[in-house]
Amino acid sequence: MSSLTNSTVSHYIDVRSDTVTKPTASMRQAMFEAEVGDDVYGDDPTVLKLQSMAAKLLGKEAALFVPSGTMGNLISVLTHCNMFGSEMILGDQSHIYFYEQGGSATLGRVHSRVVQTQPDGTLLLSDIEKVIRPFPANDDHFPITKLICLENTHNRMGGKILSVEYTNSIGELCKKHGIKLHMDGARLMNAAVELNIEPSKLVESCDSVSFCLSKALAAPVGSIIAGTVDFIKQAKRLRKVLGGGLRQSGILAAAGILSITEMPKLLKNDHENAKILAVGLAKIDGIDITASEVQTNIVVINLNSDKLSIDAPTLASKLKANHKILISASEITRIRFVIHYMITTENIEFILRQIQHELDQYRK
Amino acid sequence: MSSLTNSTVSHYIDVRSDTVTKPTASMRQAMFEAEVGDDVYGDDPTVLKLQSMAAKLLGKEAALFVPSGTMGNLISVLTHCNMFGSEMILGDQSHIYFYEQGGSATLGRVHSRVVQTQPDGTLLLSDIEKVIRPFPANDDHFPITKLICLENTHNRMGGKILSVEYTNSIGELCKKHGIKLHMDGARLMNAAVELNIEPSKLVESCDSVSFCLSKALAAPVGSIIAGTVDFIKQAKRLRKVLGGGLRQSGILAAAGILSITEMPKLLKNDHENAKILAVGLAKIDGIDITASEVQTNIVVINLNSDKLSIDAPTLASKLKANHKILISASEITRIRFVIHYMITTENIEFILRQIQHELDQYRK
Amino acid sequence: MSSLTNSTVSHYIDVRSDTVTKPTASMRQAMFEAEVGDDVYGDDPTVLKLQSMAAKLLGKEAALFVPSGTMGNLISVLTHCNMFGSEMILGDQSHIYFYEQGGSATLGRVHSRVVQTQPDGTLLLSDIEKVIRPFPANDDHFPITKLICLENTHNRMGGKILSVEYTNSIGELCKKHGIKLHMDGARLMNAAVELNIEPSKLVESCDSVSFCLSKALAAPVGSIIAGTVDFIKQAKRLRKVLGGGLRQSGILAAAGILSITEMPKLLKNDHENAKILAVGLAKIDGIDITASEVQTNIVVINLNSDKLSIDAPTLASKLKANHKILISASEITRIRFVIHYMITTENIEFILRQIQHELDQYRK
Amino acid sequence: MSSLTNSTVSHYIDVRSDTVTKPTASMRQAMFEAEVGDDVYGDDPTVLKLQSMAAKLLGKEAALFVPSGTMGNLISVLTHCNMFGSEMILGDQSHIYFYEQGGSATLGRVHSRVVQTQPDGTLLLSDIEKVIRPFPANDDHFPITKLICLENTHNRMGGKILSVEYTNSIGELCKKHGIKLHMDGARLMNAAVELNIEPSKLVESCDSVSFCLSKALAAPVGSIIAGTVDFIKQAKRLRKVLGGGLRQSGILAAAGILSITEMPKLLKNDHENAKILAVGLAKIDGIDITASEVQTNIVVINLNSDKLSIDAPTLASKLKANHKILISASEITRIRFVIHYMITTENIEFILRQIQHELDQYRK
Repeated sequence: MSSLTNSTVSHYIDVRSDTVTKPTASMRQAMFEAEVGDDVYGDDPTVLKLQSMAAKLLGKEAALFVPSGTMGNLISVLTHCNMFGSEMILGDQSHIYFYEQGGSATLGRVHSRVVQTQPDGTLLLSDIEKVIRPFPANDDHFPITKLICLENTHNRMGGKILSVEYTNSIGELCKKHGIKLHMDGARLMNAAVELNIEPSKLVESCDSVSFCLSKALAAPVGSIIAGTVDFIKQAKRLRKVLGGGLRQSGILAAAGILSITEMPKLLKNDHENAKILAVGLAKIDGIDITASEVQTNIVVINLNSDKLSIDAPTLASKLKANHKILISASEITRIRFVIHYMITTENIEFILRQIQHELDQYRK
Repeated sequence: MSSLTNSTVSHYIDVRSDTVTKPTASMRQAMFEAEVGDDVYGDDPTVLKLQSMAAKLLGKEAALFVPSGTMGNLISVLTHCNMFGSEMILGDQSHIYFYEQGGSATLGRVHSRVVQTQPDGTLLLSDIEKVIRPFPANDDHFPITKLICLENTHNRMGGKILSVEYTNSIGELCKKHGIKLHMDGARLMNAAVELNIEPSKLVESCDSVSFCLSKALAAPVGSIIAGTVDFIKQAKRLRKVLGGGLRQSGILAAAGILSITEMPKLLKNDHENAKILAVGLAKIDGIDITASEVQTNIVVINLNSDKLSIDAPTLASKLKANHKILISASEITRIRFVIHYMITTENIEFILRQIQHELDQYRK
Repeated sequence: MSSLTNSTVSHYIDVRSDTVTKPTASMRQAMFEAEVGDDVYGDDPTVLKLQSMAAKLLGKEAALFVPSGTMGNLISVLTHCNMFGSEMILGDQSHIYFYEQGGSATLGRVHSRVVQTQPDGTLLLSDIEKVIRPFPANDDHFPITKLICLENTHNRMGGKILSVEYTNSIGELCKKHGIKLHMDGARLMNAAVELNIEPSKLVESCDSVSFCLSKALAAPVGSIIAGTVDFIKQAKRLRKVLGGGLRQSGILAAAGILSITEMPKLLKNDHENAKILAVGLAKIDGIDITASEVQTNIVVINLNSDKLSIDAPTLASKLKANHKILISASEITRIRFVIHYMITTENIEFILRQIQHELDQYRK
Repeated sequence: MSSLTNSTVSHYIDVRSDTVTKPTASMRQAMFEAEVGDDVYGDDPTVLKLQSMAAKLLGKEAALFVPSGTMGNLISVLTHCNMFGSEMILGDQSHIYFYEQGGSATLGRVHSRVVQTQPDGTLLLSDIEKVIRPFPANDDHFPITKLICLENTHNRMGGKILSVEYTNSIGELCKKHGIKLHMDGARLMNAAVELNIEPSKLVESCDSVSFCLSKALAAPVGSIIAGTVDFIKQAKRLRKVLGGGLRQSGILAAAGILSITEMPKLLKNDHENAKILAVGLAKIDGIDITASEVQTNIVVINLNSDKLSIDAPTLASKLKANHKILISASEITRIRFVIHYMITTENIEFILRQIQHELDQYRK
């Protein structure tokens, strides 16, 4: 666990994740002035306003403010898989399967049927078709396939964008089989901005979508889930039992409103910075990356152990200790950089220089 | 569901709950200026400061900020009842059993063994002893008793205070049987202020405690759980899987710090107002209440249907429509008033007059 | 744990439970000759025959053979409470709540709402009405009341019979509130025989019923659950996931058929023997029992600790060691005797003499 | 669902599964004569004898009789993954993951981490290593890897045998990481007989093993799980809550004893018949199978849709209707044959002739 807890933390160049973004000055002001009420009673006008705006943004009937993306996904999965004996199909590299502590099973008792996530973040239609359980044939050996989950942009696949066409093709498959479709759209806005289309278009065939106000959109806390009125009604019950029913959450929603009104215009710049970083990293000997594959604000590299005698966690330590640069290096050769509004092009250039400098000392 | 969502909501006199409290001006300022970081990485200095202060306040090794009291209780229950086949003993009128959507069972697979909550908010020692499962006798017909839960002050019993002596007697019983003790201390500060002792004293024999920063302490969002370092480490894992791991939650923690430093001194006044209300209500014919039993900020009455031809929900509607007074009337004759810093003695007098006025029209 | 595992076990007079009954000679023969098939494929003719006969006996559309009463109850509870966030109402002394290791919560994520079991085995209608959750008011603080469970005859209440009128009154309440009614009829046949009516009459207002073929009906293994065709279809799925889908279970069903055709006529004799035992015990100084309250094959007594210096487990040990009598004494003063076809009136008289003899040595 | 429920069922040649085996004459006799007691009290001498013999056979400290292989696996998984937040690693084609209705998640709240099952039934060591969660690094995003499951022989992979060396290599990996190893040994005896070694040798590095007495070993009902004394003690508690605690199960155990003493010597013949079938099928144009890969009693083929205009379910229907042959054809081109003691070499030849005959009418 990190401990950047003294006041110098802000001096770091932090590209571990876009979750580290701090609220903007206008967010601070909006939170200061926010009109609030008790949202468990449905009385917080700012939360209601955000929910209404978010529903529109995502093209759904209704939306709900939740404390985190993990809770948003868990609630969505449980709402669709409310019946005992449910199974969902999802990718082996998806956030829900990989990074959410197995909550769908451990809390939600949903069985995960896993297919391989492709390098572009998609699941192959043919792979999905193969694992849909026969129903209503109702073989007692099998759970019932209730849900497919996609992720746009795809975190572990390096911020890859799912196209409208791809998502719609899965949506059609779902309709054919009576299966629901959930989109983990934690970074959906990055995809929308990069494609220059409305976020709603990207989830038009989804029954539900989760969407983070924190991450690159800079709100301090909070995510949105959206779907039909009935979905949101059920989701609200689950939010309560999970402990996500908050009181004067208008404070947070006030920042969230700016996340969807002011922040999107900054994302294009993040993507450009990410590409600058990727191109620069590709030029450093010993780093494996195809710069042209970087689509949004995430850059993933691998350290080539044939050429370098340093592993990812060690490089991360050195960058932190020597240059106040924070990167994400939780696996032995894999490093993830996530760009956000607090990172400038100058920061990118500084990062590139220091990585070059450190690696030069560990060449085989 | 209520819909007090226009800006006139603040003109209401709202005694439905102390959860409706809005952040104070100094809280607004503290949130505006809060130093923040990504708390999932452990980087938020304000959250860390609050947790440290709260641990000290509650006399425990460590503390954790959680989004709500419901999540705090759920995490505590699951941490103590981590093993399959666990049972907890709790009162039939406890918040965990009554008001948390059955989450201990539906999410946490913990079996509830219920004993009767006494009018003073206690559970009889003899009742508890009767239902502790024989262990290690290990009869396969029985789950294993792992936890006892108490609540101080006791919400449904009208804000009743559990004494240090009582809680310690249950603590001794727990130690004797190798059972953990959890205190739902959502309103523990009200008890401490009324008894004029440290909150830590009230939970000295508890293995864990949950404690709300919202409610009468006025923070917009958040609760604390406290216990041993190991308990908090496990609790932090559960907070994450439940979706309670927040990012720049220092915004909320900044208000929470004032909840435990500035707000307690106002509670005594709330209790006095509650007593004024209780004494006043006791004078109104048709209202059943023993004013001397009001100990903190909660006042519960019953409408006497022999004398009155109006039920509680109807009275609530009339007070709202005619006098902009909001009360809690979710059962047919039972009404709950909860006093907090936004309610003045003048408000109390106004409430009393209007209730008298309304009831006078429904006498049998 | 007992260890009566050598061949002399059959020399014991065993009134710990009617579960100890061994298959009759005709059951042995029927099992030897049973036509069987793979019941997971639905191919076992003897199982199908038993299920058909049991459905008719219980007046339901369909029935399912399950390995045990505990599994029958668990499946029934889960089938009715299939949706997330379900609550059931049941008695604090019911077998499901008391003796099934909390499986409804630990495996089935159902929240138990408990009311006091009355001495006659009933739950008060007024107690039940008080705890039915308001729905469709849909307060997010509450789970949804989906099920009420009754037990006939009532084990812990000493084999008490629920009348047709009583059960129907609960059935009406259920219909009014859209709640399902499950009958734990492990010993339903004892009630039917004693009342001299059809078992189906006793569960006519129940949505499901479990019914044990073992216990006094002497089958070596197995229970029945019955309900609508749709209920049984869902139940069969749950039986499979729980591991209760058996293969050539016609072996067991062959005995089960005799349980419902041949054994009922012997139960009246068991009840008479139980009354003889009760009357005899009531004459022994130091034993608390009201003999007139014994209705079926269960006799429960308490040892009066003011008069006797021996507790129940010690008395049980002495009866076993000195007289080869086995009784159930799992609580400190409480003893349960259960009479079955292997117990003769001579055995009863022997038991009475030896208890008198042992207690005479421990008088205060 | 099938309905071979009239008495002519025995005239079918049934190779759908070895679960269809009926008890042998000596099993019928043994069940008739079995000495029994109430096994919930631990009083059934035949069950105790079987458990003792099975523990020895599997080289473990203790064993437990359970109603089915599915229950045996579920109990084993839950016992090893008793703590909240557990994950197990298993193959995507394993019985536990594929055929047990997702019970590990839906009942047991265990998260499944899936790796690809290889054609020989193994999981690649390198695949497993890649997905073991870092621990005690204790990243809150991850569940904790508690268990790896193997399957020997492997059902869906066509009865493939895992070698002693392979299983031991996984056992070493488990020890290194503090992970438990469970063997789904439903057909372990087939592997042992084919390798001509003791079953215990095949599971010497496993912490637990499940083992079916039904299937090719012909007992009507029942499986065994084996492990340490402490594992079995915990398992017995889970058996009870699942409803697998039976009463006079010595009836079934009596047959089970013959399953492990008399039946193994017949398995070699089953394997030879399976090879005859495989060689014969390989000669039929349009059937894809590599006969040399058949190792035990399971034969899996695919119908080549380029050459044949009939799918598997249709062929199954025709064989049943026209020739009283029952095969398993639950997928569109895949057919499974399982050979057992009731199938003679003549039956095999008959099956081959009729398949040839039917396919000849559907050639493209």
